[in-house]
Amino acid sequence: MKSSSTILQFFLFYLSLLLSPAKPDPHPLQDFCVADRKTHRSFFVNGAPCINPNSTVSAHFATSALSKPGKTSGNPFGFNVTLTTTANLPGLNTMGLTMARVDIAANGIVPPHSHPRASEVTICLEGTVLVGFVDTLGRLFTQQLRPGDSFVFPKALIHFLYNLDSLKPALSLSGLSSQNPGAQIASMATFRSDPPLPNEVLRAAFQINENDISRIRRNLGG
Amino acid sequence: MKSSSTILQFFLFYLSLLLSPAKPDPHPLQDFCVADRKTHRSFFVNGAPCINPNSTVSAHFATSALSKPGKTSGNPFGFNVTLTTTANLPGLNTMGLTMARVDIAANGIVPPHSHPRASEVTICLEGTVLVGFVDTLGRLFTQQLRPGDSFVFPKALIHFLYNLDSLKPALSLSGLSSQNPGAQIASMATFRSDPPLPNEVLRAAFQINENDISRIRRNLGG
Amino acid sequence: MKSSSTILQFFLFYLSLLLSPAKPDPHPLQDFCVADRKTHRSFFVNGAPCINPNSTVSAHFATSALSKPGKTSGNPFGFNVTLTTTANLPGLNTMGLTMARVDIAANGIVPPHSHPRASEVTICLEGTVLVGFVDTLGRLFTQQLRPGDSFVFPKALIHFLYNLDSLKPALSLSGLSSQNPGAQIASMATFRSDPPLPNEVLRAAFQINENDISRIRRNLGG
Amino acid sequence: MKSSSTILQFFLFYLSLLLSPAKPDPHPLQDFCVADRKTHRSFFVNGAPCINPNSTVSAHFATSALSKPGKTSGNPFGFNVTLTTTANLPGLNTMGLTMARVDIAANGIVPPHSHPRASEVTICLEGTVLVGFVDTLGRLFTQQLRPGDSFVFPKALIHFLYNLDSLKPALSLSGLSSQNPGAQIASMATFRSDPPLPNEVLRAAFQINENDISRIRRNLGG
Amino acid sequence: MKSSSTILQFFLFYLSLLLSPAKPDPHPLQDFCVADRKTHRSFFVNGAPCINPNSTVSAHFATSALSKPGKTSGNPFGFNVTLTTTANLPGLNTMGLTMARVDIAANGIVPPHSHPRASEVTICLEGTVLVGFVDTLGRLFTQQLRPGDSFVFPKALIHFLYNLDSLKPALSLSGLSSQNPGAQIASMATFRSDPPLPNEVLRAAFQINENDISRIRRNLGG
Amino acid sequence: MKSSSTILQFFLFYLSLLLSPAKPDPHPLQDFCVADRKTHRSFFVNGAPCINPNSTVSAHFATSALSKPGKTSGNPFGFNVTLTTTANLPGLNTMGLTMARVDIAANGIVPPHSHPRASEVTICLEGTVLVGFVDTLGRLFTQQLRPGDSFVFPKALIHFLYNLDSLKPALSLSGLSSQNPGAQIASMATFRSDPPLPNEVLRAAFQINENDISRIRRNLGG
Repeated sequence: MKSSSTILQFFLFYLSLLLSPAKPDPHPLQDFCVADRKTHRSFFVNGAPCINPNSTVSAHFATSALSKPGKTSGNPFGFNVTLTTTANLPGLNTMGLTMARVDIAANGIVPPHSHPRASEVTICLEGTVLVGFVDTLGRLFTQQLRPGDSFVFPKALIHFLYNLDSLKPALSLSGLSSQNPGAQIASMATFRSDPPLPNEVLRAAFQINENDISRIRRNLGG
Repeated sequence: MKSSSTILQFFLFYLSLLLSPAKPDPHPLQDFCVADRKTHRSFFVNGAPCINPNSTVSAHFATSALSKPGKTSGNPFGFNVTLTTTANLPGLNTMGLTMARVDIAANGIVPPHSHPRASEVTICLEGTVLVGFVDTLGRLFTQQLRPGDSFVFPKALIHFLYNLDSLKPALSLSGLSSQNPGAQIASMATFRSDPPLPNEVLRAAFQINENDISRIRRNLGG
Repeated sequence: MKSSSTILQFFLFYLSLLLSPAKPDPHPLQDFCVADRKTHRSFFVNGAPCINPNSTVSAHFATSALSKPGKTSGNPFGFNVTLTTTANLPGLNTMGLTMARVDIAANGIVPPHSHPRASEVTICLEGTVLVGFVDTLGRLFTQQLRPGDSFVFPKALIHFLYNLDSLKPALSLSGLSSQNPGAQIASMATFRSDPPLPNEVLRAAFQINENDISRIRRNLGG
Repeated sequence: MKSSSTILQFFLFYLSLLLSPAKPDPHPLQDFCVADRKTHRSFFVNGAPCINPNSTVSAHFATSALSKPGKTSGNPFGFNVTLTTTANLPGLNTMGLTMARVDIAANGIVPPHSHPRASEVTICLEGTVLVGFVDTLGRLFTQQLRPGDSFVFPKALIHFLYNLDSLKPALSLSGLSSQNPGAQIASMATFRSDPPLPNEVLRAAFQINENDISRIRRNLGG
Repeated sequence: MKSSSTILQFFLFYLSLLLSPAKPDPHPLQDFCVADRKTHRSFFVNGAPCINPNSTVSAHFATSALSKPGKTSGNPFGFNVTLTTTANLPGLNTMGLTMARVDIAANGIVPPHSHPRASEVTICLEGTVLVGFVDTLGRLFTQQLRPGDSFVFPKALIHFLYNLDSLKPALSLSGLSSQNPGAQIASMATFRSDPPLPNEVLRAAFQINENDISRIRRNLGG
Repeated sequence: MKSSSTILQFFLFYLSLLLSPAKPDPHPLQDFCVADRKTHRSFFVNGAPCINPNSTVSAHFATSALSKPGKTSGNPFGFNVTLTTTANLPGLNTMGLTMARVDIAANGIVPPHSHPRASEVTICLEGTVLVGFVDTLGRLFTQQLRPGDSFVFPKALIHFLYNLDSLKPALSLSGLSSQNPGAQIASMATFRSDPPLPNEVLRAAFQINENDISRIRRNLGG
């Protein structure tokens, strides 16, 4: 079992990929606006400032970030998501989309989560993955994916991916409709926020007691 | 305690307000586009079709929908949200915003939830309300509101409102930046979807066992 | 009666709330982009620059700006509008909406005006208010509001609010679909601009003579 | 002098060009969406429905609507605006812009007005035209244009064009950033709406008396 | 060598995937708007009409369209692009993105082309692919991709993919930031339009003679 | 005949007008955001930074840039396009449109090109101009324009203008739906990029041989 600090580390590491100071996806207003990774420490906008366009080189539009499998053992869920971001792919800035590779250990899950700023289409490349999303009426739409199959997760709705195979990892590749989709895991956002949500809120929301809350928090690394 | 059918009813009723077949909030492309509540049964678009603009009357832009307190006793959380929609306020169609009144019983909560399509600013009109949201890094931002105080819930992030007063109801009025913000309660979307999420997913996501899952489902009306 | 300088002061004060150097309402491209109120003196963009997201605290999302009634006696119309802005509520930056409290003295009016960048929904909280807007075909849509009643003012169209009660002030709360709606009062923009519109333009536009122009300007504080 | 019915006719005719049932300017989501001028009588959306794309012909993208000078004598101001619309140029549908020719009689004006949904750049082709706009702080920005000179009117702000030449007509050509910009003349919207604005509102807004109101209304064709 | 009719067929087939009557990618204004593939024969909008949301099933969000390699021998370039569309994946409607699989024969190319409505990020899955785009200043940005490498093609700029391997096919997977990106191959649009571009235009644009034009047209299947 | 350096110069000069470091056309979020032409050397964003709004003067909204005919002899095609930009018209910043004058020598052409970020409506002012665009299905839509006639070029599709008159120049005025439309000439982008596209790509794309490529490059100024 993971220690809480490992899990917290995972949580922060995973999420740090998803929120960096400034990553825009408005319409491109010029051919490109290669993200300036130095400037943005001292100046922040709703979207990354760019480098001088005359300094742009081909490498700004290329990345190998998605070439290696992510480490799925660093969290209790058994998954890893690697995203293109304006940090590892600065030419992505203002382009309005993200690619992501999703590695899921045997029987691992990407737990129910939502992307505040993106729709997603995922294509299964390896393994057998059960995917699904819940709409605002509470209906679950679910499908079992085999290699080559794709599935849509509508914008900002809670969805999950579950590797049905108990022996082999699964691999999925996703496109997301924002340069900085963000992600919020429902169980982590409610039980592992910093500082924690008031117990009264969790008690009522999940109809559980104080012991349950403590136990879930602890098991999720708190 | 509420029976499951009452709660389900609440759930469906509450959410039915939030998703109707077609409610747009693009830029208005004409002065107005009063929602046609008859036509949209047979024809659906990403946004409501309009009536003939020559048939528009003042009443299309007016509603008393928010004038009466909502019934907070129909669910285990003790709250009620009443929204302006293109059903009760057809002139709202294409205008890009919604007003909502939030009634919360003594010590009741609006449980952690997100609006897939809107930011929200709420202003407390009566009572003492603890509000907060969790960002994608897991940080909780929270504040205690007294009448006249306002608070921002950024787009699509999980947030809650909790009536700190154990004797009196609270009242809050919100503006939301979409004509059809939608809402997804984290606990309901995960434990009360229809059909239910696979137990394997919930077990891993919340690090709980089958008994916990059954109990939470039951308590939430399942 | 007000002296012209008082009225001018009101005019500038009122409007200064509505235009500050840089207030964006694009889609949020990150969880939030808390407006940096210091930086924006030396650097201006179409929207406010943000503070370092690591410096964000809960107070950035909260304000009591709308808690106190505005002073309606500082202008000849008898009204006051108080808005949430990125100045008094920096967390509002990039969220795409504004809340406003509208105080109207007995028999006072919010004179015919338009918001260049926002639709508005107002809810009457106290008093009896006659509201209306004119569409681009010249049609007036009007309604009498009692507490709890709401009304829609479509984007950028001329509208007014008039307190029908000759004894008591009225109070209305509005949501607007932009973070910086702006406002332009038709009579003030035409008769009290700085410098003034050419008399030839006003003579023809209103079919009045030079004496009328001088008198209206003077009465409006010029 | 014009009779009131002539002026009203002008008013309605002029404005009828600006508001037709459904003209969108969202992003084009296909190569084109040629407006269906027959269908839109029975079905209305926030934007015009299209014809079957297989029926598209070159003529849908061409118009001679702007080739002839407009009649400037049909109104008390001495101007005429002719616009490309989805009625006279159906291929314009979804393209997000409009072209307009502005004819102004000797010493005529295009009276102070705003376009709720568009910025405008005008280029003077003939004559000497004084143009200007008022911002939301009440500042007037003005310029005298000679053939070849261009000027910007920011979105939804009140602006005017005045032909300084007392002998010859002027001609200007404008681009507007919406397919259906709309227009609202400040004096007409306030004094000639149908039904009229309450006298109390006009009295306070312009600080005039009942006689003034009647006279202005009458002179503007009421 | 291909006969002209085969090539034309390819051209039309390939492009027919890219333009179907109505495929929107505005912001989703509801949870989803599953494309109605029956209705859109008789009614066209800038974006597909939806089915009744109550009829939505999981299969609407799933497709195997990208699971099979495309036939690269049907055209002179040696490539095939298969896209998710609202036809093969109706739940994609309004979601604002597309996934595409790109098969390229040994030494085949995806010839210089642009997507009028989308940025693209491609990830190489098999083979060695030389990719590049030209900006509006005429600068070429190019990179050699190996499996796992990604590259950005900014919105609407001309780009190409070239399989450097003379023996083995290459495979790439792309995300595009529109539901209906469209595609225009520079050589085909100029030399194989229907009807053809005037020879005068091609002569001057490419500084070639009539014989060149005839030969190129013929070789491209004309 | 032009030497290659003259043509290159033209190419770079012409295109330098189209891409400057930062020119936004999002929704205006304030009355205006006059482009700061000094600041943008050291700081770049997806859109131009503004000057302090208090420093705005009328001249920022005016330009004579379009008053003089462009020199059509500096390139092999015989045309010149002059645009309003945030450089020559800083008040245009954030307004979402551009005006352009198009001068075409006798029998000259504006060669097939596309604007990555704009739709265009052109109005012929002098001469006889054959215009046309090709859609993504390869269909050509074409029309002959006489003074006063207008034509639509849909967003990002390849189009051309050809002066049919062998004796006299033609003049056209265009509105474009972006503040920085950009332009990519199909023949120049493929044969005159810097560095050049690989010969293999051109050979296959145009089905020509190495000699053809060299000749075309040379004739286009390479």
